[in-house]
Amino acid sequence: MKFAHLGPVGAEIPVLVDDEASYDLRGLTPAITGAFLEAGGLAAAAAAHAAGELPVLADADALRVGAPIARPSAVICVGMNYAAHAAESGSAPPERIVMFQKTPNTVVGPYDDVTIPPGSEKTDWEVELGIVIGKRASYLPDRAAAAAHIAGYVLVNDLSERSWQIEESGGQWGKGKSGPGFSPTGPWLVPADAVDPGALRLRSFVNGEPRQDSSTADMIFDVATIVHDLSQYLVLEPGDLVLTGTPQGVALSGNFPYLRAGDVIDLEIAGLGSQRQRCVAYGGTTADADRADADRADAAEANGAAS
Amino acid sequence: MKFAHLGPVGAEIPVLVDDEASYDLRGLTPAITGAFLEAGGLAAAAAAHAAGELPVLADADALRVGAPIARPSAVICVGMNYAAHAAESGSAPPERIVMFQKTPNTVVGPYDDVTIPPGSEKTDWEVELGIVIGKRASYLPDRAAAAAHIAGYVLVNDLSERSWQIEESGGQWGKGKSGPGFSPTGPWLVPADAVDPGALRLRSFVNGEPRQDSSTADMIFDVATIVHDLSQYLVLEPGDLVLTGTPQGVALSGNFPYLRAGDVIDLEIAGLGSQRQRCVAYGGTTADADRADADRADAAEANGAAS
Repeated sequence: MKFAHLGPVGAEIPVLVDDEASYDLRGLTPAITGAFLEAGGLAAAAAAHAAGELPVLADADALRVGAPIARPSAVICVGMNYAAHAAESGSAPPERIVMFQKTPNTVVGPYDDVTIPPGSEKTDWEVELGIVIGKRASYLPDRAAAAAHIAGYVLVNDLSERSWQIEESGGQWGKGKSGPGFSPTGPWLVPADAVDPGALRLRSFVNGEPRQDSSTADMIFDVATIVHDLSQYLVLEPGDLVLTGTPQGVALSGNFPYLRAGDVIDLEIAGLGSQRQRCVAYGGTTADADRADADRADAAEANGAAS
Repeated sequence: MKFAHLGPVGAEIPVLVDDEASYDLRGLTPAITGAFLEAGGLAAAAAAHAAGELPVLADADALRVGAPIARPSAVICVGMNYAAHAAESGSAPPERIVMFQKTPNTVVGPYDDVTIPPGSEKTDWEVELGIVIGKRASYLPDRAAAAAHIAGYVLVNDLSERSWQIEESGGQWGKGKSGPGFSPTGPWLVPADAVDPGALRLRSFVNGEPRQDSSTADMIFDVATIVHDLSQYLVLEPGDLVLTGTPQGVALSGNFPYLRAGDVIDLEIAGLGSQRQRCVAYGGTTADADRADADRADAAEANGAAS
């Protein structure tokens, strides 16, 4: 049993998905929000489904698939959580969790086009296991409590612009992580009790060629440790999305070219479904891209910045 | 003319404030949200006030002061934006904007107590000018367009835990920036047309002793440059909060002790009001603090982290 949002951007319908059909959840909630998760909405929906109370959503297959969660209050990312990816990025494995953030408005649907930002030369893919928080988490006492605060799991493409992440923000990564549409999420939210997050195969492909192929068993910090540890530093809200890091096999390694308009990205995590995104050029003109590039360069020189 | 939220946490009343009284805005909006700002709500409220249509809020002085904006979709921070602060932090002035994020749930009222997190030894203050975004900002063409996307300005204390910011997240600052209540904001949102953000004196004090005393004229990147530049990398949403960096005079410099329970912090920016926070110990027991500290240490060793 899985959960999803189907329909146009801004008008998605929450559904429960089984092997037979998609069932309309609008009688229970307008969307799969943090409040719905905190109130035990997934279990309530499952009970309603078992009782035959949920109507089938007609023509569900014709609808766009959105991200299976409402816009979170925060997207927290764990960096360098697979040793081989740390190595390909030129870093030692971290001794403590490396945390940064993406803006929540980067969360989009799993099949939405990926727009290469104007002026970008280094847009990169990252397949990741995403944790969806089910209950407000603050100063949790142990890993078992942390596990009980997880509502479920999602597949996420943690898109990154490597120049902006690494070279253009004094070493702070967020600037290259928050481009428009940079967090395709879904297709499904799978409840935590139906997933063993410790041994999931996760893969990515570009134009059908394999890129990443690893297992969540290779994580340095596992999901319960991540939620427990983060809760010592900040408050995780219901519906928040925590990305758990990506394995080796990204373009940053130097082994593969960065993404270009026309490329097709495929990603999958066992049990959590698959994504496919077509890369497209920024909708404006080439002049727009040149202007955005020049503007970024100008900003560096404006206002007496040291050089 | 200024805007504020008055009342208990979660039940704040939006008000317009003039020299005479506070006027209830609930006839126009339930809160000072991004949607209200984007719809021109500040101007509409001013017009209603000029027409004598807003009721006075009785006993306003007896109410708690909340942050003067609803929880934003993102809190974007600019680091090292004053050359002397960069120097006291051991860094060269940046050539490009250094961007990182705080979680939006850190935004609290300007007089709310500051809880020193359990186990923290290095909680630090930072007085900052905050920009409140008025309209969705993406790929803005120039600084003039950026200025037109600013709804107003607020005073913010960008509290930071320096160990967690600098030593415990592989150099990514956000972990030490998102502690519970770490962004006291307000008391007022002052509309952009009433503020010259280029020459505002900003000061902080601990227990009445001066700490920071500088001017926004010393910023490396000014507010219009910040909004224009950030919009080339990410989408700023209406109601989002952009912190513009802090001047020299924080504890990180080594010249002053870090915050302890019992300390009183005062902050002010000319025209934007003043804040006062009392520092208090974490509400739990000393054992809780010891446990949180031990948990953070344990997390570093768990799951085979390299050492």
